[in-house]
Amino acid sequence: MASINDNYLKLKAGYLFPEIARRVNAFTSANPNAQVIKLGIGDVTEPLPLACRQAMAKAIDDMGDRQTFKGYGPEQGYAWLREKIAQHDFQARGCEVSAEEIFISDGSKCDTGNILDIFGKNNTIAVTDPVYPVYVDTNVMAGHTGDANEKGEYGGLVYLPISAENEFTAAIPSQKVDLIYLCFPNNPTGATATKAYLKEWVDYALAHGSIIFFDAAYEAFITDPTLPHSIYEIEGARNCAIEFRSFSKNAGFTGTRCAFTVVPKTLTAKAADGSDVELWKLWNRRQSTKFNGVSYIIQRGAEAVYSPKGQAQVQELIAFYLENARIIREKLAAAGLMVYGGVNAPYVWVKTPDGLSSWDFFDKLLHTVNVVGTPGSGFGAAGEGYFRISAFNSRENVEEAMERITSTLKLG
Amino acid sequence: MASINDNYLKLKAGYLFPEIARRVNAFTSANPNAQVIKLGIGDVTEPLPLACRQAMAKAIDDMGDRQTFKGYGPEQGYAWLREKIAQHDFQARGCEVSAEEIFISDGSKCDTGNILDIFGKNNTIAVTDPVYPVYVDTNVMAGHTGDANEKGEYGGLVYLPISAENEFTAAIPSQKVDLIYLCFPNNPTGATATKAYLKEWVDYALAHGSIIFFDAAYEAFITDPTLPHSIYEIEGARNCAIEFRSFSKNAGFTGTRCAFTVVPKTLTAKAADGSDVELWKLWNRRQSTKFNGVSYIIQRGAEAVYSPKGQAQVQELIAFYLENARIIREKLAAAGLMVYGGVNAPYVWVKTPDGLSSWDFFDKLLHTVNVVGTPGSGFGAAGEGYFRISAFNSRENVEEAMERITSTLKLG
Repeated sequence: MASINDNYLKLKAGYLFPEIARRVNAFTSANPNAQVIKLGIGDVTEPLPLACRQAMAKAIDDMGDRQTFKGYGPEQGYAWLREKIAQHDFQARGCEVSAEEIFISDGSKCDTGNILDIFGKNNTIAVTDPVYPVYVDTNVMAGHTGDANEKGEYGGLVYLPISAENEFTAAIPSQKVDLIYLCFPNNPTGATATKAYLKEWVDYALAHGSIIFFDAAYEAFITDPTLPHSIYEIEGARNCAIEFRSFSKNAGFTGTRCAFTVVPKTLTAKAADGSDVELWKLWNRRQSTKFNGVSYIIQRGAEAVYSPKGQAQVQELIAFYLENARIIREKLAAAGLMVYGGVNAPYVWVKTPDGLSSWDFFDKLLHTVNVVGTPGSGFGAAGEGYFRISAFNSRENVEEAMERITSTLKLG
Repeated sequence: MASINDNYLKLKAGYLFPEIARRVNAFTSANPNAQVIKLGIGDVTEPLPLACRQAMAKAIDDMGDRQTFKGYGPEQGYAWLREKIAQHDFQARGCEVSAEEIFISDGSKCDTGNILDIFGKNNTIAVTDPVYPVYVDTNVMAGHTGDANEKGEYGGLVYLPISAENEFTAAIPSQKVDLIYLCFPNNPTGATATKAYLKEWVDYALAHGSIIFFDAAYEAFITDPTLPHSIYEIEGARNCAIEFRSFSKNAGFTGTRCAFTVVPKTLTAKAADGSDVELWKLWNRRQSTKFNGVSYIIQRGAEAVYSPKGQAQVQELIAFYLENARIIREKLAAAGLMVYGGVNAPYVWVKTPDGLSSWDFFDKLLHTVNVVGTPGSGFGAAGEGYFRISAFNSRENVEEAMERITSTLKLG
């Protein structure tokens, strides 16, 4: 008899975004004329940069001629893309990251889940609360947790609460943890990390032999020049951190699919016999065996992000979404809500008014003003009483949504 | 201290194709003027069908207009693609497979590895020998095996030998196995399966509650109308089989990346408490959590495979490679080699002459006539003494390689 991975049965009913989609679909089926504005899932809305489109169109032409046709590419990604990333995103910021340490993939969501493949079963794992749900769910699936309690917290995970009280920066744990997920600029709270704060984490990790999974998918939204874009701006991070990056939120690749993960060759973890094993070698083996690289066409599109025109077009996109975020913050604050984030990040994190639960506020916004956000409790127990509004939409929709909320919705 | 997945340390030195690449690179570095012809890795060489290129170019235009821009798509793939696949590849052949049962992915290699995520640790796993190495290596990584012996066989796996003696069709095992990998048309041997033979496997699986992983990546090469293209042509397969399909080898998508996996909703396996759990639900959860769908642009390219023009262009590609296979078979046979496969498959499986080992024959071909093939022993211990020649190359290269082998190489 074939048997299943029973850990899947520990997962709670629905991954957050499918549940949101379910409620929105139910509402729009019942109210077909409602003009629903979606500021929920962090999905971009504006056209792909022209430079990327032109590069992909040319790549399609390459595929039409056997002289320039591309079959299987390197599982790790093409050298021309890895080199541009290393140069532009790291070396230009003073980070020692080589092209060989960059692995191109089809998404950071995939990579943050798949990275667990190369780690053992007995690591103690820390996540912030609230947190991007994929970090937790993939650990549940891998059998790294016990069952969930009534608040949705899984046994065996170390939760580091973040809230207005600690300015959305988790305290360094007093206990020993082996794997730590950090995300800055933060999803969902929009909080950022200073170099001094990241240095505390790097020092902790070096002292304990821990590995930090640093999710920097939103680094392009950093406008404050004092904030680090990469954890490798912190001394010692090459010996304790893996970084995840994406083209989804800078160049609008959510539907185009390209991302990358940095695994420094200096990074090791322990084998059962106590020896130190290079994580680069394990991840390289994992990717070579279970992945076949990203489409040549898409990699050419990602490469164009680093062209002068691509850079200008990406900056324009970022500025556009950040202006949306500013409008959201100011309008909601003027309406009397407590708002956080949204300055160096595309997410505004709102305290729900009137003591409403996150899902009650979700339903109220959906049913009263037809605006979709994301319930904070969907990101973890400590997100209860908060709500995420995304700046990813057209200016018109953002303004209309804010107008509806501030004028129609009775708050406070 | 963070610890690694020690199972990775059981893996043998190199995945087959990187090892081939290493030897070829060493040879070409030492012999920069050698005109090496690669008939090794099963990688297509001819341009992408025009219909696919046109559809992708149009999709790029869609991405340039916010009205038609696509952000995150369904993790399972777009309905318009899943419906065409269900209709064309299954329903038109009398197979009861619905669009909802089809999961679009970026590769069959990925899917055949990832599928293990949803199964438990205590399944007994059977593979043929020789076999596509990814099936074995992903089981090693997942901790389903013991160490390898000196022949490269991993403890805990059930190996089903295939060779000329049993006409490259594995005997149905006498013992009970829970998960079985079958690949037809076969990689590496080029062998095919009759409906009667697959029926034996389906009956075995139904009797034992086993699940068959059916890899049909090469089904497009079937020209014999009596041979099944899908395991769902066999009665009962919906209750015991998952099928893997790819656009890599029919439409030349090895560098473009699109594939799909069929998980019937009627398929179950056992939870620890003895209950039956729908595998569709687990795979859907796995893909929703650890995958973000295939690029919209690429899915539009795959959709075009099902247009009348796309179908004609794919048929032309297949006929081209099959003619290459015919030339390889006939020339090698005329040169006195024992050849198998290559009729309903793009691979010709050759018995090495003069009792040479597979790698010795590899080195002899590379160094003497500068032709690259794949050592049979790289696919498993029982592949020793065999050699795979791929039909994926230009006519000119195939003819030149055969000319060199038959005229220059001293055989027998």
